[in-house]
Amino acid sequence: MLSFSSSALGMRSSEIRRLLKIAADPSIISFAGGTPASSLLPADITDEIYNGLSDQTKRAAMQYGPTDGYPPLVAEIKKYMESKGINFDNQDLIVTAGGQQAINLVAKVFLDPGDVAVTESPSFIGALAAFKSYGADTVGVPMDNEGIIISQLLDTLDKTGKKAKILYLTPYFHNPAGITYSVNRKRQLMDALKGRDICVLEDDPYGELYFDSNDKKLTVPLKAAKDQPVQICYAGSFAKIFSPGMRLGWLIATSEIADKCQLAKQSIDACSSSFTQVLAAQFLSQNKLPAYLETLRAAYARRAGIMLDSLKKYMPEGVSWTTPKGGFYIWVTLPQNMDSTVVFNEAFANGAAFVIGSAFDPAGIKNDCLRLAFSSTPEDKIEQGIRIIAEAVRKTMRK
Amino acid sequence: MLSFSSSALGMRSSEIRRLLKIAADPSIISFAGGTPASSLLPADITDEIYNGLSDQTKRAAMQYGPTDGYPPLVAEIKKYMESKGINFDNQDLIVTAGGQQAINLVAKVFLDPGDVAVTESPSFIGALAAFKSYGADTVGVPMDNEGIIISQLLDTLDKTGKKAKILYLTPYFHNPAGITYSVNRKRQLMDALKGRDICVLEDDPYGELYFDSNDKKLTVPLKAAKDQPVQICYAGSFAKIFSPGMRLGWLIATSEIADKCQLAKQSIDACSSSFTQVLAAQFLSQNKLPAYLETLRAAYARRAGIMLDSLKKYMPEGVSWTTPKGGFYIWVTLPQNMDSTVVFNEAFANGAAFVIGSAFDPAGIKNDCLRLAFSSTPEDKIEQGIRIIAEAVRKTMRK
Repeated sequence: MLSFSSSALGMRSSEIRRLLKIAADPSIISFAGGTPASSLLPADITDEIYNGLSDQTKRAAMQYGPTDGYPPLVAEIKKYMESKGINFDNQDLIVTAGGQQAINLVAKVFLDPGDVAVTESPSFIGALAAFKSYGADTVGVPMDNEGIIISQLLDTLDKTGKKAKILYLTPYFHNPAGITYSVNRKRQLMDALKGRDICVLEDDPYGELYFDSNDKKLTVPLKAAKDQPVQICYAGSFAKIFSPGMRLGWLIATSEIADKCQLAKQSIDACSSSFTQVLAAQFLSQNKLPAYLETLRAAYARRAGIMLDSLKKYMPEGVSWTTPKGGFYIWVTLPQNMDSTVVFNEAFANGAAFVIGSAFDPAGIKNDCLRLAFSSTPEDKIEQGIRIIAEAVRKTMRK
Repeated sequence: MLSFSSSALGMRSSEIRRLLKIAADPSIISFAGGTPASSLLPADITDEIYNGLSDQTKRAAMQYGPTDGYPPLVAEIKKYMESKGINFDNQDLIVTAGGQQAINLVAKVFLDPGDVAVTESPSFIGALAAFKSYGADTVGVPMDNEGIIISQLLDTLDKTGKKAKILYLTPYFHNPAGITYSVNRKRQLMDALKGRDICVLEDDPYGELYFDSNDKKLTVPLKAAKDQPVQICYAGSFAKIFSPGMRLGWLIATSEIADKCQLAKQSIDACSSSFTQVLAAQFLSQNKLPAYLETLRAAYARRAGIMLDSLKKYMPEGVSWTTPKGGFYIWVTLPQNMDSTVVFNEAFANGAAFVIGSAFDPAGIKNDCLRLAFSSTPEDKIEQGIRIIAEAVRKTMRK
């Protein structure tokens, strides 16, 4: 009998995976997947870029590349990040296979079995899975509408002590909570963390997707602060601003951390796809991003608006939800003790789907919330889907 | 002070990495990189494929895909593997980010710190790094011209006992040794492993690249055997038969192992690039592989021939080398106790490079051999490069 490693023994095909699979049924109105709408993907821009490549660049695209990334792409992302105020003194940038790999690499270089990754509660499924895959415990800290609750964060850090190695945060258009940190909360957070021996992992896949340009100021990265009282690693992604199918993201960290992450990446996949890196480098260097972002912001704002109107119209009293300023998600809190899996089963039977709350609970238990993604559902299906889910909530209330 | 995880503490930017970096200097005749020649990459075929894609397929290429792979590509690789005799009863196939990730996933699901990965000696750098990255020890077993030496393998397995979880083998056109297992040795190996609790990881990136079609019969995978007396995982790769820049490979394993590997992959990078998977699926479904392989086989056979002739012409007595039947590599054994790093420095100063032997030693010590890759060096540079290296050997002999 072959015996699996201890980390493999801890891996389980989860209930959530099953639910996501069934939610992919094309006859269902699904608010489950945190994916861009396929109709919004810039296929025409990509055509133009590909067909403009020289034979020499095409051959570079088909060849191996350096582990830390295709040099022209590294240069372009750095320029882009500098435009957001990030300074590269003593900092390096690694191109990763999506934002997921950036999170995974930081997890690998910091976490031993029994260590703790402190996260917001709720938090991103992929990050929770990455932390757990290295044998770490995930401990969640609640949020309010302005971000993580500082007093509770400090309690948690005091309790977990030296075991707490990573503080994982998604400050902008949070997945799944749909909230955005206030400028004030970010300041309080940085003050509270002063001198702590913890690595803040700032995950920023949605920061560009504000609905109102007045909110742009909310999306200034922690990593852009002049004085950083604590170590900050920054994870970026092309998934929501270009294409998830390219599997490209990036990590910014001190040279010491970045070097360890690069060695880890070398043994994981040697390098990211040169082919998709060439396309992404051109996407940035040809300045295709700004206009494309305008299209996305308008489209997602419209979808969010329809979903919010529909929630107001159909949801029974006792149900509450967040009002996102950008991104992909609305987080719905059901009346006390209602189990979102019961609501899911009822809604699914009637043709609509979402992701249950426990998927995002760092402890994997709390299930009285649910996540609605408005990003990929056709505009004319959103109201109908919300009506089905509201009906499922009502029915569950009567049980 | 932030503290790294124990696996990160073990990571070191190696001497080999430094040597590979300097060997990439374009003014150097380099036999260092195990890469296809850029001039041989099928850029024209890829153009034709890309421009023939429907808008719908292009959008699928830009979107997320299932963790185990883009379904049309999974189906195409299965068909291709079935044509090599592999049977998928109770076996699953996962598309991976290159062959490197297939190795890494198997390492992750089997190895705990202190476990042992038994490998051939010499062995592939990337595999050694992957095994070590999970805290395992790598223990090498010598080979002769027909493959791993069975008596020594059994000694090693007896000594390492239950700690030995993986037996990693590259039976076809070995990297770096350039040898190929005889049919007889494969039979003896399977007999010797009967009933052992070890997972054989068969790595097959070069099997298609035989120089003489009579040698095709040597490349029948262990995984294609009717009766498999031991668990076999099979790793394949598109890097040497299509394009390394696509970062695509695959893993075939029992459904139980494949499921664990899929969960591990989910937390590492969520899925492989849909974009490059769409291209690879078309490369197979449009039957572009057979003709392209004919081109590659002829080109690499020519390069190997030039290199062998040059070795014979220039190397001093006391130097020996393997005669490859395919693949990318020739393994050179220097006269006793000669240090290949000394030869490297001398050769590099005169304009030629290779990879020193200790890079491939599972113990990281033995350094009296060196690897020559003939795959990416222009034909008209090979003789000159070998002359420089032979001169460096002579000079080192005289020291």
